[in-house]
Amino acid sequence: MRVTSFPIVTLRDTPSEAEIISHQLLLKGGFIRRVSAGIYAYMPIMIKVLEKISQIIEKELDSIGCNKLLLPQLHPAELWKISGRWEGYTSGEGIMFNLIDRQNREFGLAPTHEEVITFLVSELISSYKHLPVCFYQIQTKFRDEIRPRFGLMRGREFIMKDGYSFHANEEDLKNFYKKMENSYKNIFNNCGLETVGVEADSGAIGGSSSKEFMITADSGEDKILFTESGSYAANIEKAISIPIKGKELSEFDQALINTPNQKSINDICKYANLDPTQIMKVMIYVGQFDDKTEVPILLAIRGDQTVNEVKLFNIVNSSHESNLINIAKLEKESIIERNLKNLPLGFLGPDLSDEFIREDSKWEKEWLRIADFSSTNLTSFISGANKKNYHKFFDTWQFSEKFINADIRNAKAGDILSKDNNEILIEKKGIEIGHIFQLGQKYSERLNAKFSNKKGQLENIWMGCYGIGVTRLAQAAIEQNHDDDGICWPIEIAPFHVILIPTNIKDPIQLKLSEEIYREFINHKIDALLDDRDDRAGVKFKDADLIGIPFRVIIGRDAANNEVELVSRLNKNKIKLSSKNLLEHFLNETKLMYNKEL
Amino acid sequence: MRVTSFPIVTLRDTPSEAEIISHQLLLKGGFIRRVSAGIYAYMPIMIKVLEKISQIIEKELDSIGCNKLLLPQLHPAELWKISGRWEGYTSGEGIMFNLIDRQNREFGLAPTHEEVITFLVSELISSYKHLPVCFYQIQTKFRDEIRPRFGLMRGREFIMKDGYSFHANEEDLKNFYKKMENSYKNIFNNCGLETVGVEADSGAIGGSSSKEFMITADSGEDKILFTESGSYAANIEKAISIPIKGKELSEFDQALINTPNQKSINDICKYANLDPTQIMKVMIYVGQFDDKTEVPILLAIRGDQTVNEVKLFNIVNSSHESNLINIAKLEKESIIERNLKNLPLGFLGPDLSDEFIREDSKWEKEWLRIADFSSTNLTSFISGANKKNYHKFFDTWQFSEKFINADIRNAKAGDILSKDNNEILIEKKGIEIGHIFQLGQKYSERLNAKFSNKKGQLENIWMGCYGIGVTRLAQAAIEQNHDDDGICWPIEIAPFHVILIPTNIKDPIQLKLSEEIYREFINHKIDALLDDRDDRAGVKFKDADLIGIPFRVIIGRDAANNEVELVSRLNKNKIKLSSKNLLEHFLNETKLMYNKEL
Repeated sequence: MRVTSFPIVTLRDTPSEAEIISHQLLLKGGFIRRVSAGIYAYMPIMIKVLEKISQIIEKELDSIGCNKLLLPQLHPAELWKISGRWEGYTSGEGIMFNLIDRQNREFGLAPTHEEVITFLVSELISSYKHLPVCFYQIQTKFRDEIRPRFGLMRGREFIMKDGYSFHANEEDLKNFYKKMENSYKNIFNNCGLETVGVEADSGAIGGSSSKEFMITADSGEDKILFTESGSYAANIEKAISIPIKGKELSEFDQALINTPNQKSINDICKYANLDPTQIMKVMIYVGQFDDKTEVPILLAIRGDQTVNEVKLFNIVNSSHESNLINIAKLEKESIIERNLKNLPLGFLGPDLSDEFIREDSKWEKEWLRIADFSSTNLTSFISGANKKNYHKFFDTWQFSEKFINADIRNAKAGDILSKDNNEILIEKKGIEIGHIFQLGQKYSERLNAKFSNKKGQLENIWMGCYGIGVTRLAQAAIEQNHDDDGICWPIEIAPFHVILIPTNIKDPIQLKLSEEIYREFINHKIDALLDDRDDRAGVKFKDADLIGIPFRVIIGRDAANNEVELVSRLNKNKIKLSSKNLLEHFLNETKLMYNKEL
Repeated sequence: MRVTSFPIVTLRDTPSEAEIISHQLLLKGGFIRRVSAGIYAYMPIMIKVLEKISQIIEKELDSIGCNKLLLPQLHPAELWKISGRWEGYTSGEGIMFNLIDRQNREFGLAPTHEEVITFLVSELISSYKHLPVCFYQIQTKFRDEIRPRFGLMRGREFIMKDGYSFHANEEDLKNFYKKMENSYKNIFNNCGLETVGVEADSGAIGGSSSKEFMITADSGEDKILFTESGSYAANIEKAISIPIKGKELSEFDQALINTPNQKSINDICKYANLDPTQIMKVMIYVGQFDDKTEVPILLAIRGDQTVNEVKLFNIVNSSHESNLINIAKLEKESIIERNLKNLPLGFLGPDLSDEFIREDSKWEKEWLRIADFSSTNLTSFISGANKKNYHKFFDTWQFSEKFINADIRNAKAGDILSKDNNEILIEKKGIEIGHIFQLGQKYSERLNAKFSNKKGQLENIWMGCYGIGVTRLAQAAIEQNHDDDGICWPIEIAPFHVILIPTNIKDPIQLKLSEEIYREFINHKIDALLDDRDDRAGVKFKDADLIGIPFRVIIGRDAANNEVELVSRLNKNKIKLSSKNLLEHFLNETKLMYNKEL
């Protein structure tokens, strides 16, 4: 490819809209252009990167017998209503764009495809003889994000690889899941990326077990907790740990403590000379279910700990038959007044009576009481007195049987690993680029996807699903591989392997030699870019650094002696050599640096 | 690929929902599955076809210097409002699905990308030095069709290749358009298809000149008119012709003719012994503009001719500043009563007074009078008397200056070619699979996409656009290539080149030989499918015919003597030969039959 016929439009200034370096570099390098919030055009140079990533994915997945297909992006609401996800994805969390067609039928713009593929498989597969089978697609997906940001990291329109496997039993699913985990490692490795696999929550997708693949980066939106030994890694939504030991509180001089206007844990600790671990924090949440039920939740947790809303969601969801579509901490005055009588917010205690719930409110009439293990371990503690400006000393948890005891706490750095008390958790930030799930029979049951097993009995198909964020991976690769001058693409997914730069295009000797080298490289199937612009060498060097091509060949004055310079983008090593030896040397260097044959 | 790990699920019965053979065969052969009206999943075997078509397109377009990119599918309404197409595409014709996001911003689901690409180019291109440039993408598009039907022919979600070129002057655009026309011929030829290029109307896309590429087929929804010599070909929306000469009507015995209840041309002709060419048919249309203006149109045409609503749309649109978004014949009683006084429908004459338009109606208060050339050529004629049950003899067109004279007539078979009166038009049906447009400066003007020319002056960029319906092409290929047993894919876009069928998979000799042949073919980069199912030979043969693989190799009992049979799908020719000679013979046959090296 020649720069004059392959439009690369770089920017001089760093776009102010971009907060993180990879987003800045994608814009500056002319890889993407913004069309609307979270919606980007992928320019030709970006297409080259995305196609290389896609090829790596396809090659690996084809090798384990997955079959590529393409599913619709417009999904009829009926399928999502059958699976029970329509409400949550539209009026609930509202992540799914939706519309009505000219016949007034509802459709969603697909963020994921469990419903559609399960529906198709229910028609296609009838016997265990047709199982296992795995389908995948690489396709644009949609999510109406509340805050689209960080470029392709949290976009509203983005490219995903999503795959779905179908099995005759759980064991086969688990084996295939392991195989897929291995393929994911191969894929990320073949893209030249370092990733960490972490245990994760299954979220709105559901199922029993799931694993995320993360690129660690300070700009990451996900927190990962892991041990130095590598024996444990999980994202914060899922991570389990034991909090550090709290301070004992065996007795306290007052049963009722006057704490005027001191609602926060910190205030109270300062005022009454207490440690946050000696306090039980009590909060109110409300859960909304798809059958319109609204459940008030009274939640207890040790004062120094924070609530993990994903864990909370899962506990509350499993407490009811219908589907939980939303859960939120109660903070709005109007909502409180409509539903609760004279509630002393800021002074709540675990023994708060059900009578605080208004009879005429929409809510269920009893608190769903949930206590985090960190609070149930307290023998005596201070908590709200359910009376404005008062806290209370509790010398026992006598009402604890009313509570569901559960882990609803965020693990954090410094916590103790549950399964080995000698290991301490550390914390890093990460960017999720892949996620695999054991879905079990969740979707096959709801969408009636059955097969007849060897005994001739009908059974729900076992199912797994597997995603890679293709556009996000491309940007995360930059977050992991860049320097002050720009991107340093891993050679495996670089838009070009090498850029040839004649320093003066008007010099016929340079031009001739450049063309010869260009043809030689192309003939050897090396992805070469010839910068044939009539521009200053400095401009070309700067652009080459910015767009991050792994190798640069400079064809300058020494072209007269058939001498050129080969420069590595990564370590800036330069070597002068005869153009005759260039190709061989380039191939050796590549092998040496990247341990890859091109 | 092996059938056991490449799920091909064929149907025994012809799906009743499919009206045309290509749609039936796509469903029966398991290429597509319906998810909703006009919305299909493309199964793995279909993906192979679509990828081959895409590769042929990409190779050709890359060779003429086009650059592949990918534009968003969600388009902000603002861009379409600037171009003036939002109303027409949403509330007007309503072809664009649209939605509001969680911030209440309007978006359309893209059926085409003139707005977005012009917006991007306006930011990227500033000088004539950057021109010409051509971008293209292959992407899923959306259209909320009134009547989705015929499978992928008129779907609501379908794959298009759309390309957009930008030029510094009209001449460069015209030259590139010619080049693209040639590339389109290459593409369709390389797909193994026979196409006809026809002059076409530019429709909602706009611009000065456009050409469609058609596959002729009885099931086609488009009418094409052309001369036997090939000197002229146009689709019916655009075709220009001279109608056959009418019968003279120099005098008539009554000025006012009583025609009780005889509203149709045929009735009147029968009753009064007239020829339809002696009658002037007068009709009312209403045009709606995007500035909310509604214009009543009085239209005159010779009695034997039919109105071409595309031509009419263009004429009416050019008569006003604002954009026409819809035009419709007036037929609904309620609309008539609300807008017109005592209108004698069925008895309208060209001298219908403006006073029939109600003062209190939303309409403009004067008829926009348009007369087709076929009616202005009449010197005397019969037409409605604007009085119920009466027609009238007109011996002159004395009020003709009030009318716009134009071609608003459908050409038809038997008409005379305008530019050579010795040639007669014939008619066929066709399926449009490609369309190229000279857009001129329509979009660059509206979206302010300017460049500085050689003189340093700012000018609107000249623009062309070029589409191919990828999924439609795949189905049209079947419409053109099938027989009673199923599909006969052109080898260039067939999912596989050859299918290997061991007649008895339990015979170890057959199995061994099949595997050897399979490996030999794969090693020679021949796309081979091995039907390794434990099924009857008859079932496999039937499936092979249905899915249309160009060659079949039967590995039967004679495998013991290393003998196999090679069968051509197209002409059913069979040849027995030694497996040693198979590959060479296969390659020769392919070359002979398809004039192609694989």
